[in-house]
Amino acid sequence: MKKSLDCIFHPHSIAVIGASSRRHTIGREILYNLIDYEFNGKVFPVNPKAGVIHSIKAYSTILDVPDAVDMAIIAVPKNTVPAVVKQCGEKGVKGLVVISAGFKEVGGKGIDLEDRLLGIVRDYGMRMVGPNCFGVVNTDPEVRLNATFGKARPKPGNISFISQSGALGEAVLNFADQLNLGFSMFASVGNKADISGNDLLQYWNHDEKTGIILMYIESFGNPKNFTKIARNVTKIKPIVAVKSGVTSQGARAASSHTGALAGADVGVDALFEQCGVMRTTSMEELYDVAMMLSSQPIPKGNRVAVVTNAGGPGILATDALVSMGLDVAPLPARIKKELKSFLPSEVSLNNPLDLVAGAGGREFALALEAIAKDNTYDAIIPIFVQPITIDEAEVAQSIINARGKTDKPFLVCFMGVGFRSPGIEMLMKSGIPVYIFPEAIAKALKNVDGYRRYLQRKKEKFPVFKADKRAVEKIIEKNRREGNGAIIGEDALDILIACGIPVAPYTFAYSAKEAIEAAGKTGYPVVMKLNTPKILHKTEARAVRVDIRNGKELREQFNDLKKQVGILKKGERFSVVIQKMVSGGIETVIGMTYDRAFGPLVMFGLGGIYVEVMKDVAFGVTPISDQRALDMIRGLKSYPLLAGFRGSAPVDIDILKEALLRISQLVMDFDQFSEMDINPFIASGKKECCKAVDARFILKQ
Amino acid sequence: MKKSLDCIFHPHSIAVIGASSRRHTIGREILYNLIDYEFNGKVFPVNPKAGVIHSIKAYSTILDVPDAVDMAIIAVPKNTVPAVVKQCGEKGVKGLVVISAGFKEVGGKGIDLEDRLLGIVRDYGMRMVGPNCFGVVNTDPEVRLNATFGKARPKPGNISFISQSGALGEAVLNFADQLNLGFSMFASVGNKADISGNDLLQYWNHDEKTGIILMYIESFGNPKNFTKIARNVTKIKPIVAVKSGVTSQGARAASSHTGALAGADVGVDALFEQCGVMRTTSMEELYDVAMMLSSQPIPKGNRVAVVTNAGGPGILATDALVSMGLDVAPLPARIKKELKSFLPSEVSLNNPLDLVAGAGGREFALALEAIAKDNTYDAIIPIFVQPITIDEAEVAQSIINARGKTDKPFLVCFMGVGFRSPGIEMLMKSGIPVYIFPEAIAKALKNVDGYRRYLQRKKEKFPVFKADKRAVEKIIEKNRREGNGAIIGEDALDILIACGIPVAPYTFAYSAKEAIEAAGKTGYPVVMKLNTPKILHKTEARAVRVDIRNGKELREQFNDLKKQVGILKKGERFSVVIQKMVSGGIETVIGMTYDRAFGPLVMFGLGGIYVEVMKDVAFGVTPISDQRALDMIRGLKSYPLLAGFRGSAPVDIDILKEALLRISQLVMDFDQFSEMDINPFIASGKKECCKAVDARFILKQ
Repeated sequence: MKKSLDCIFHPHSIAVIGASSRRHTIGREILYNLIDYEFNGKVFPVNPKAGVIHSIKAYSTILDVPDAVDMAIIAVPKNTVPAVVKQCGEKGVKGLVVISAGFKEVGGKGIDLEDRLLGIVRDYGMRMVGPNCFGVVNTDPEVRLNATFGKARPKPGNISFISQSGALGEAVLNFADQLNLGFSMFASVGNKADISGNDLLQYWNHDEKTGIILMYIESFGNPKNFTKIARNVTKIKPIVAVKSGVTSQGARAASSHTGALAGADVGVDALFEQCGVMRTTSMEELYDVAMMLSSQPIPKGNRVAVVTNAGGPGILATDALVSMGLDVAPLPARIKKELKSFLPSEVSLNNPLDLVAGAGGREFALALEAIAKDNTYDAIIPIFVQPITIDEAEVAQSIINARGKTDKPFLVCFMGVGFRSPGIEMLMKSGIPVYIFPEAIAKALKNVDGYRRYLQRKKEKFPVFKADKRAVEKIIEKNRREGNGAIIGEDALDILIACGIPVAPYTFAYSAKEAIEAAGKTGYPVVMKLNTPKILHKTEARAVRVDIRNGKELREQFNDLKKQVGILKKGERFSVVIQKMVSGGIETVIGMTYDRAFGPLVMFGLGGIYVEVMKDVAFGVTPISDQRALDMIRGLKSYPLLAGFRGSAPVDIDILKEALLRISQLVMDFDQFSEMDINPFIASGKKECCKAVDARFILKQ
Repeated sequence: MKKSLDCIFHPHSIAVIGASSRRHTIGREILYNLIDYEFNGKVFPVNPKAGVIHSIKAYSTILDVPDAVDMAIIAVPKNTVPAVVKQCGEKGVKGLVVISAGFKEVGGKGIDLEDRLLGIVRDYGMRMVGPNCFGVVNTDPEVRLNATFGKARPKPGNISFISQSGALGEAVLNFADQLNLGFSMFASVGNKADISGNDLLQYWNHDEKTGIILMYIESFGNPKNFTKIARNVTKIKPIVAVKSGVTSQGARAASSHTGALAGADVGVDALFEQCGVMRTTSMEELYDVAMMLSSQPIPKGNRVAVVTNAGGPGILATDALVSMGLDVAPLPARIKKELKSFLPSEVSLNNPLDLVAGAGGREFALALEAIAKDNTYDAIIPIFVQPITIDEAEVAQSIINARGKTDKPFLVCFMGVGFRSPGIEMLMKSGIPVYIFPEAIAKALKNVDGYRRYLQRKKEKFPVFKADKRAVEKIIEKNRREGNGAIIGEDALDILIACGIPVAPYTFAYSAKEAIEAAGKTGYPVVMKLNTPKILHKTEARAVRVDIRNGKELREQFNDLKKQVGILKKGERFSVVIQKMVSGGIETVIGMTYDRAFGPLVMFGLGGIYVEVMKDVAFGVTPISDQRALDMIRGLKSYPLLAGFRGSAPVDIDILKEALLRISQLVMDFDQFSEMDINPFIASGKKECCKAVDARFILKQ
C-alpha cells in the first residue's frame, strides 16, 4: 500500500515557487487561482526577487518562509528545478506539484534531469505529481485547492479525473463547466515520474467524495498493477477511460500474423474489459457517460422506456438504443390501461411513447410517473422538442417531479431549445442529465450497461493446473541449445502434453511404407504433415495433406510431398507426421502474443481465415480468469458455429476454456516465448475429439 | 419533370388561413414569423371572425381577400381543411402549406380525409406541402419567407433541408443557429401527400443558392425515383441524409435467412451508396458534415495534416482519422526543413505536428502556411487548446489568414474555450467550421471522403445481357402449374443457364449403377446431391455428399442417402444429381431478396457461414451497375480470400461481377421471385471452374 496522497490534496500551507506578478505567466496564474478559489490555508509566493506578489509577501527561497510548508507548486525553469526541490526537502515539504516541463518528454538530457529530480524527491521521502503537468484540484470545501493555471473554476461534485495530458485536462475542466459537471479531485499527472494513475486510483478509492473516476490515458506505467487496483475500485466506483494511441500507423507492419493483430490496442480493450473499466472512444462519450453516472444510479437491467413529444427523435432514440443492444421493450397492458385513462385518443400506446406535439407538463408528468412506477423498465428517457405552444419549464418540472418519485435513472433529451435554456438549467440543477441528441444517451447507456453486466456476473476464478514444468524447461533448453528460433513439431506438441492439453496422437514416418504402417494403426482417413525439413507456415507450402483415405492415396501423397520438398540440406532426412483425421470438429486457434506493455496476451479464434481475414479474434491479458476465457469464446462473432449452428451439436466449451486457462498459466510460468499458437485445436461436441493437432512456439531472442 | 415549386417558395402574396392573435397558437406564430422575418410581399390573415390580427386587416375567408393570392398556409382544424382548400382553389391559389394535422398519420378516417384533400388539390392544379407539417422557409433576400411556427430565425446560407419530422425540423433550425449554419430553403414535408422529398431534390438541384442538401427521412415514397434523381443531384451538389427506422424490432424474425438479413435498412445503405448520398448515423453527425460542406471545398484526396498545440488532442485526432480510413501521412522532408527554420527545437516534426503549449499566433500561422502550400495534404486540421498564456483571437486570426492563402479545406478544433468564445466567433464569421472534439472532424471527413471517392470513380455502366426469357417464363409457369412454392434442382439451374450464368454440369441418377456411370463420365471426385424428394435446405438434411473419390464410395453413399431419406411418398422416386466436384475454388453465394420498399435487392457473400454467421454480405438495389457489382465484391470483409490469400491465385472477379449483373437483370425482368440464391457459386482463378452448383427460387405467393 502506497503512502496516502494527502500531502498533495489536503495541504494546509502551500508555497508557489516561481510565483510571479507578470500577466500571462504560469507563475501568476497558479497563485491567482489558489487565492481566487479561496484556498483554505496559507499561500506563500516564492520568487528570487521576493517583494510582494498579488498583495502577498513573497520570499526569495522556500527556506525563507517562516511557517511550515506542506506542499510546494513548482513553476521555475527546468534547470533550476532540482535545486529548488532540494530546498523543499530541506524545508520539510511533503508534497510537490511540478508544473515545469523539459524533462523525460523531450528525451536526451531531459531524461537525466528527471532521474535527478526523482532521486531528490525519494531522498527526502516526498511525493510528487509531474513534472510537466497542469496541476491538481480538490474541491472539498475544507480544502478548496485549485493549483492549476487554467481558467476553469471547478464546481464541487463526485467526479475525480486523472489526465495524462495537461491540455486535455484543462479542456476537460472548462467543458465540464458547460455541462454542469462537478468534481471531487483532479490531477494532471504529466510524466508520472513519482505519482501514477495507479496511485490516484488507490487514493480515490478511499475518498468518500469521489463517486466516479474518469481517466484520460496515453500509456500504462504498470498494467499488471492497474489490473489489480482497477478490479478492486470498479467493485465500488465506476471508472470510465479514454485511452489514446489506438492506431500506431505503420509500426504495426509486424512480421508474424498474431503479432500484427495484437497491436497494443487489443490489449487495452482486454485489460479494461477484464477489470470492468468502461472505455469510451472519444472525450465526448466520456462526458456523456460521466453526466449519467455522476447523478443517476446504475440501471438494474437493459430495458428502456422512451417518452417523447416528437416522433422523429423518438425513432432516432429507438434506433440508437436497439443497435446498442438495449431493450426498448413493449408497454405492458397494465401501463397501457393507465395511460389510456388520461392521454388523448390519438396517442398510440407504444414504446417509444409519442405523446404528440400537444403534450405539455401534465401529459409528461402522468406518463412518466405511470411508466416509472412499473417494474418493466430499468431506465427512462424523456425526449422533449419544444413546440412554441408549450412551456419548456413546465415539462422540465414534470420530469423533475417524476424522477423524484422513483429510483430509476432518467436521461433527458431536450432538442431545439437554446444553449442551457431555462428547462435545461432546471433539470441540471436538479441533478438530471440532459443531452442534446438521443444518440448520445444510447451510447452512454450502452457503456453503463456493460458495467452493470460486469458487476452482475459470476465471481471470477483463477484456477491453477498441474503441469510438468521440468519437461517444458528441458524442451526449451534443448531447442535453445540447437539454435532454433522456434519450437515446432513433436517438441511443440510435447510442451502441450506437459501442460495437460489434449493432443491428437501422431506417428513419424521416414518412408511411404512407414507412413502406411502408421496409418494402418490409427485408421483412415489420416492427415500427413511435413516434419523435416522444418518450416513455419505449413499450409502455404502445401505441406499438409488432409483426408487421405487409403494406402494408395497415402503413397501418392507421400511421394508428391517429397518431390515438392526437393533436395534436402546436409544432415536432413525427409520425414512426415501421420495423424488420424478428426472430422466433424471445428478448427480453432489458441495463441499467445507478447505485448511490450501488457506481457503475454492469450488469443482465441476460429480457423485461420476467421482470425486472419475476418479479424474475429479475442484477447485476454494474462492471467485470465475462467470468466474471461468464457467471454473470449462467447464474444466471437463466429461463436454461433461453436454453439451449434444449423442443427450441428455444440462443441465442448469447457474444454476450450480449460485449454485457454492452461495456456495462460504456461505463458505466465515461462517468460521465454514471444508468441505461440495451437493451430488447429479441434473443438467438438465429443470430448475425446477435442485435441491440439499442431503447435509452434517462437522463442524470445 | 414536375412543375416548379416556385408557388411554394417564391410567393408574392400569402394568405394565412387560421391566423389568430391568441398567444401560443400556431395561427399566431406563423403570422408573426412571416412578418417578423419581413416577408417580401403581402400577407393576408384569414379568420372567420375577420377583424384585425397583429395590426393587419383580416378576412373571414380567402375569397374575401381583394388581391390575388399565390400561396396559402393552412392552420385550421382538420375537418375544415377540405372546405378551406376548395376556397383556395376557387381563389386561384397555386401553392399550399398545410400545417393542420389529423390526416393519414392517425389512420382510419384520417386517411379518407387526406384522400379528399389531395383530390381537391389535384382538381385545382395546386401544389401542396403537408399536411401535418412544420412549414417552409426561403431565406432568399428577394423572398424572406419564414412560414413556420418555430422560434428560429434562419440565417441565409447554402444549405437546403428536407425534414420528414416537424419536430426535428424545428430542432434543426434552432441548433443550426447555435452552429452558425445558414440555409437557403427548408421544408417540413409532413405526410408528403403531394410534394415529396423527390420533388424538392429536383427543385433544389436547379436552385443556385442551394449548395448542399440535408435530409431527415423516415420512409421512401418512391425509392426508384429517388435513385434516379439523387444520382443526378449528387453529381453537382452533395446530399447528406439521416434515415431513421433502422431497427424494426421484432418484425424481422423473418423465416428465410437471406430475408432476415435484408431488413430494409441494408436496402437504405445500398440505395444511398449507389447514388452517392452520404448517410450519417445521427443528427449530430449530419450537422458536423453540413458544417464542413457548407463552407469548405471537398478535399481532393484522403491525406490529412494535423497541427496542434496540445499532444493529447493531437493523438485523439490521429486515432480517429486513421481508424476512419484517412491518411495522416508523414511530413515530407521539404516541409520539415521549412518548419525547422522557425519552430523551437523542442518541437518534433511529425504529423500530427505538436507545436507545444507555447505556440501562439505566429507559430500557427507559419506552420499552417508551410503545410497548406505543399501538395502533400488534402485537408488541414488545426487543433487549439487554449493555454492561459496565449491569446485565442491571435491563433484564430492566423488560421483565418492561412486558410485565405489556400483552397484546401480547414477543419478547426477549439477545445477548452467557452461556448462560442471570441476565437470561435471569429472563425465562424470567416466561414471556417469549428468543432469542439477532434473525433467529430474525423467522422465528418470520413463521410465526405466517401463522397469524393464516389465522384472520382469510373462512369457507371448498366450492361444489358442476352437472355432466353421465354425459357425462364416456361419454367416458372410449369412450377406454378405444379403448385410448387419454390423452383429448385434442375429447373433452377436451367433458369441460370437461360440467363447465361455458367452452371456446373450435372447428371441425374436413379440407382447406384446410374450414379457410377455418370461419375465415370464426369470423372472423380464427384458430389452427390439428393434430387427427389425435394427439400429446401440440403446441408442440414445431410443430403449433399462431397468429395466422393471412387465407385465404391459412391455406392456406399448412395445407399446411405437412400436409407436416410426413408420411405417415399406416392409418386416419388428417389434420385440424385451427380456433379463433378470443383476443387480449389471458393464458395460464394449470389442471391436476391425482395424488399417491400426497394424491390429486389441483389446479394453477394462468401460461403454460407460467412453470410449467415459473420453477416459479411453486400446488397445492391436493382438495377445494379458494373461499379456497384464491383463495390459489392470488394467491400466484403472476406474479400482478401477472393483477391488471393496466402499465395493462392486470385479468383476471376469479372465473372462474379457478370453473374451479379445477370441476376440483377433477371430479377428486374421477372417480378415473380420473393427470393433466390445460387449457393454455391464457385469462384476460381480458372475461368472454366467458375460455376453455379446449386440454386433455388422462391416464388411470390
